[in-house]
Amino acid sequence: MNITALQPGTLVRTIDWRDGRVTIIDQTALPHREQVIELETTRELVKAIRRLAVRGAPALGVAGALGVALAARQAEREGWPPERLEAELSQLRAARPTAVNLAWGVDQVQPLLGQGAKAVEAAALAVLDADVEVNRRLAQRGAELLCALRDEPLRLQTHCNAGGLACVEWGTALGIIRALHERGRVQEVLVGETRPLLQGARLTAWELRRLGVSHRLICDSAGPAAIASGLVDAVIVGADRVAANGDVANKIGTYALALAAARSEIPFIVAAPESSFDASTPSGAGIEVEQRDPSEVTAYGGQPVAPEGTEALNPAFDITPVELLSAIVTEDRLIRGGRGLPAALS
Amino acid sequence: MNITALQPGTLVRTIDWRDGRVTIIDQTALPHREQVIELETTRELVKAIRRLAVRGAPALGVAGALGVALAARQAEREGWPPERLEAELSQLRAARPTAVNLAWGVDQVQPLLGQGAKAVEAAALAVLDADVEVNRRLAQRGAELLCALRDEPLRLQTHCNAGGLACVEWGTALGIIRALHERGRVQEVLVGETRPLLQGARLTAWELRRLGVSHRLICDSAGPAAIASGLVDAVIVGADRVAANGDVANKIGTYALALAAARSEIPFIVAAPESSFDASTPSGAGIEVEQRDPSEVTAYGGQPVAPEGTEALNPAFDITPVELLSAIVTEDRLIRGGRGLPAALS
Repeated sequence: MNITALQPGTLVRTIDWRDGRVTIIDQTALPHREQVIELETTRELVKAIRRLAVRGAPALGVAGALGVALAARQAEREGWPPERLEAELSQLRAARPTAVNLAWGVDQVQPLLGQGAKAVEAAALAVLDADVEVNRRLAQRGAELLCALRDEPLRLQTHCNAGGLACVEWGTALGIIRALHERGRVQEVLVGETRPLLQGARLTAWELRRLGVSHRLICDSAGPAAIASGLVDAVIVGADRVAANGDVANKIGTYALALAAARSEIPFIVAAPESSFDASTPSGAGIEVEQRDPSEVTAYGGQPVAPEGTEALNPAFDITPVELLSAIVTEDRLIRGGRGLPAALS
Repeated sequence: MNITALQPGTLVRTIDWRDGRVTIIDQTALPHREQVIELETTRELVKAIRRLAVRGAPALGVAGALGVALAARQAEREGWPPERLEAELSQLRAARPTAVNLAWGVDQVQPLLGQGAKAVEAAALAVLDADVEVNRRLAQRGAELLCALRDEPLRLQTHCNAGGLACVEWGTALGIIRALHERGRVQEVLVGETRPLLQGARLTAWELRRLGVSHRLICDSAGPAAIASGLVDAVIVGADRVAANGDVANKIGTYALALAAARSEIPFIVAAPESSFDASTPSGAGIEVEQRDPSEVTAYGGQPVAPEGTEALNPAFDITPVELLSAIVTEDRLIRGGRGLPAALS
């Protein structure tokens, strides 16, 4: 495993393939240390996935695919017996038990193992490229939509990290913001810090800084008030899952922003690839919300803040009903939410 | 300035007067260290107010009054010219810009300055005693109101700290919760951690623990979702200032809870002493919202969480419009808000 400093100013893919190796930006070191790690073996990749050095559903899908390519090269080089290859891929598939994308990525590439390492590599690179392409199309569609909102550059708000760091390069909500920025149409982005794990403060602020997008961090509780104060033209967030009726599960805190956007009559836009849609779940009521460890709430950055023994409730997501949405933007579609779009965008 | 340890188990006043000094529980040290600080000069008191060692509208009212008593003693002892006394009281009055109670407390006592330090002290102590009595009456009125909501014990939600630590002894929002608890009518209280300074996690959780009230901490962003999930029967918060039309300035995050309570049609109750009413400000639009240091958002406990140089917006309060309120409870009145009260409470 080789670690190099990320070159300032360059746009580096969150996960990539370089000379037969997987490269990742080590997200556990962000935002204070900017390191690119080169991984030569599937075991190294599995370790990196387990310690969350690479995270986010789309990025994990790509990691699964590239991991098979690593294993195929190793198998050829070292003359692995089939059982060894099988065992390595099982470990890769199970590196994060709940991340379905990881297994999905492995499945995209594994059938080509019989055709040799070169064929596997080509298939894995196709998965990588497809993620970039899906994000780019989604981003351009969202940017075109929002450009019509105002003649001046936009004041946007986002929550958590639906950025390049969760994907390969563009991101979903941050992809739209990047595309708007490239058109000179972003004045400022307000970023919710995203308690308890502070993905907004640690990751989104870092990405926007590298992209050169003007931004300010706010406490999550200040998001609705910022909207009411007239500081925001539109809210753009990602989605962890979209139910069949359009209800959206996303990072805890999304619902409050949707309530505030509805009251202040500004657009509330969800950026989600088609793969986030779950046709088998009729509505948000059917989405099981992950409850995480209470210690994430009772401590802050590893330091306890509440009295010892304090109990906590720590839902990872909330459900925003489709009636509060203006639109969902995917790589293929613009889906109108219950609130519809302002006249300027219709 | 003298610091002593708070005796375990004793009921100590948040702010008090002892032998010509102001004593306060240092709230910046809670919940890990329980310390009482003795302050001998108005400057020490102003510093303590600025760093939030004493905070909360009613406690600040008492601090304003006791601060004048401190200044009167100092003026007599050190032979201050009138300009010096004037300057010290101006600084005291302006130690927190949004807190109308601070100036109110100063105004209660300042007219007696011509009658000497002893008369000023007696007037300041009357303000102190009145706060305890005001809170007790407010708490009983609020508890009576909410008892009618459900036959079973209530599931309540609060934000920040409108407890004994914000007052002298009882508290406003937590005073109502304490009064309900004493009647056996509280099942659980959800407490928003209250970023950036975590008064919910540090102070409210500490108080509820001492009172023996069952409670769970949540991230502020999870409050609206908890309401939408049906976990809450009523929200009770304090107020930093109430405008003439009933709009309420309170800790950042209050507005989001009011939006969620309105959508889920549960009562949203503001507990505020009459002294929080500002007849000279027609509506919330006229309330200046204090902007605090960005480093409260970008760092925690001295540890930066965002990339170096990240800017932040850090409003201390938000404005909840009267249309989103069910009622304001004071020591003298029950004022119906724009949403009105459910039939059970009318």
